[in-house]
Amino acid sequence: MNLTLTTLPETIRWQDGALYLLDQTRLPLETVIEKQETVDQVWQSIKQLKVRGAPAIGVAGAYGLVLSVTDQTHLSYAAFLQELERQAAYLDSARPTAVNLKWALTRIVSKARELSGFDVPAIHQRLVAEAVQIHDEDRQLCRKIGEHGLALIKQDMGILTHCNAGSLATAELGTALAPMYLAHEQGIPFRVYADETRPLLQGSRLTSWELQQAGIDVTLICDNMAAYIMSQGLVDMVIVGTDRVAANGDVANKIGTLGVAILAHHFNLPFYVACPYSTIDFNTPDGKSIVIEERGETEVTHFGDRRTAPENIQYRNPAFDVTPHTLVTGLITDRGIIRPPYQENLQQFYGG
Amino acid sequence: MNLTLTTLPETIRWQDGALYLLDQTRLPLETVIEKQETVDQVWQSIKQLKVRGAPAIGVAGAYGLVLSVTDQTHLSYAAFLQELERQAAYLDSARPTAVNLKWALTRIVSKARELSGFDVPAIHQRLVAEAVQIHDEDRQLCRKIGEHGLALIKQDMGILTHCNAGSLATAELGTALAPMYLAHEQGIPFRVYADETRPLLQGSRLTSWELQQAGIDVTLICDNMAAYIMSQGLVDMVIVGTDRVAANGDVANKIGTLGVAILAHHFNLPFYVACPYSTIDFNTPDGKSIVIEERGETEVTHFGDRRTAPENIQYRNPAFDVTPHTLVTGLITDRGIIRPPYQENLQQFYGG
Repeated sequence: MNLTLTTLPETIRWQDGALYLLDQTRLPLETVIEKQETVDQVWQSIKQLKVRGAPAIGVAGAYGLVLSVTDQTHLSYAAFLQELERQAAYLDSARPTAVNLKWALTRIVSKARELSGFDVPAIHQRLVAEAVQIHDEDRQLCRKIGEHGLALIKQDMGILTHCNAGSLATAELGTALAPMYLAHEQGIPFRVYADETRPLLQGSRLTSWELQQAGIDVTLICDNMAAYIMSQGLVDMVIVGTDRVAANGDVANKIGTLGVAILAHHFNLPFYVACPYSTIDFNTPDGKSIVIEERGETEVTHFGDRRTAPENIQYRNPAFDVTPHTLVTGLITDRGIIRPPYQENLQQFYGG
Repeated sequence: MNLTLTTLPETIRWQDGALYLLDQTRLPLETVIEKQETVDQVWQSIKQLKVRGAPAIGVAGAYGLVLSVTDQTHLSYAAFLQELERQAAYLDSARPTAVNLKWALTRIVSKARELSGFDVPAIHQRLVAEAVQIHDEDRQLCRKIGEHGLALIKQDMGILTHCNAGSLATAELGTALAPMYLAHEQGIPFRVYADETRPLLQGSRLTSWELQQAGIDVTLICDNMAAYIMSQGLVDMVIVGTDRVAANGDVANKIGTLGVAILAHHFNLPFYVACPYSTIDFNTPDGKSIVIEERGETEVTHFGDRRTAPENIQYRNPAFDVTPHTLVTGLITDRGIIRPPYQENLQQFYGG
């Protein structure tokens, strides 16, 4: 059961000690792969959403971190570790909401601590290997999410998704889109509605594009059309990704997800959230504890270079929102579908 | 109690037998007033949303109709009436969902029928006067809506609105925004959240602009941020306009209104719909009977001239949706606030 991977974009590549990222801000018009020369460039790539999606920024962050200390292997172990921690904190500051970034950075730093007896150049080699392993694991996790979610997709279903939790958000297959890719591979017919996802249009630029490339029946709508499309009976299920799942099952995801969850609840449609274990954060007790990144003005007041709102208008631009666990039908994870009560069941699947 | 009208835009002007429309597609960057030379130009202005908002297109349609027969006063009465009916049907085709357009066109045609004994040039003069009266009446209706809605606005409230149901949608003051203008005039402090309203951004281009011009505290958000803003306790009430109210109280309005109504219901916030009597259509039994206009591709797939979605992507672009009366707290009309049961109370206020 292997998808024809030629149709899926390669979001992140590590080759000959160099990191390459597909610049997602230029999709779907241009497919530009940018070599990342410095840690500052990686920080900017994350900040500017050239690479985005919680699992993908975890992978990119891990590579960025090992890249940041490539020229520091002459240092003492203590100085090397200190530099690694400093760079990890710096990279983490690029996107505070997604937990996978912190998770991946912490994993690299922990590995360096474990290896305290080794030569620094050897440690660096092992950290590179750890980053590659995070990347490989993500590929496998996505496939497992796809396999567990596959059973939810029935013939002729309409599935609505928000933002992009596909190949472009991960190492491969995606989280929310993984079950769709596997269902398509099995020849199950279904339709996808992709919310365009203002302000940055990940739905129209990315989700529409990658599903269309794979030959999946996808229809683009504006975010505010979801209620109408649901009211017409065209949607049978919602699947989205997430940037962080709190210990009680509250879910942080791209702005607009909460609205979709409330609509799904109103129309009695199941609302699923797909994620790997690395997105589940037992250190975050509930959604209230999650810092919501507020972004800048022009994303809301301009379309490209063109101003569309009056000068000096007040605006809000929260990049994420929190969907309370009470609105979540299930979490599609790499170990299976977790259902309420989440506090207990998350612990049972992943705790300790 | 007169608002400083210098701050309010003049959407429609009839002067020396000529019709002038403020081109709303160029707001807020440019304030361009276009003289309407032909009925085709008026049709295009309605179709392209240079003039929009149910009451305003009623007024513009009435003027467009009298303009269409200005050069036909040499005809016999029967031929003149036939031409008038043909032009009315043509103008009505520009926007099928808003009932005010049909209402205003029918009113002009009915007036011509009433005047069957008169000379055709005299009839034309009376039709011009009827169009001016529709325009004047709309100004008065908006003020009455404002006065009835004013009592709903309490100090320090947050009010969310969708699309533009302000001065730009009417002859003056607006429908949904009329209570806000009067509350502001009385010195009551409150905040407005304006949904940007994809795809055509009436919220960011028009509502933000006219409220800002009037000195009202307005914050622009993307449509998909409304749920988050409500979840933070920042919204106390929703007021929107409407393009048609069915006999059972179902409400057709700009796409996205249904979603806002469902969110308001979820967060236990009152959801009001403001309109003059001409928007209430007893010939439409319920929302299911309302034709929903579907618009073209580029509004969804492009930002201005720039493509933002892949080539050949499937899309939907319904311009309106229907909010069931069960989600409507009240209708703010020129005769007062109508509350459930709507079937009975609409009849009592406006029936017969």
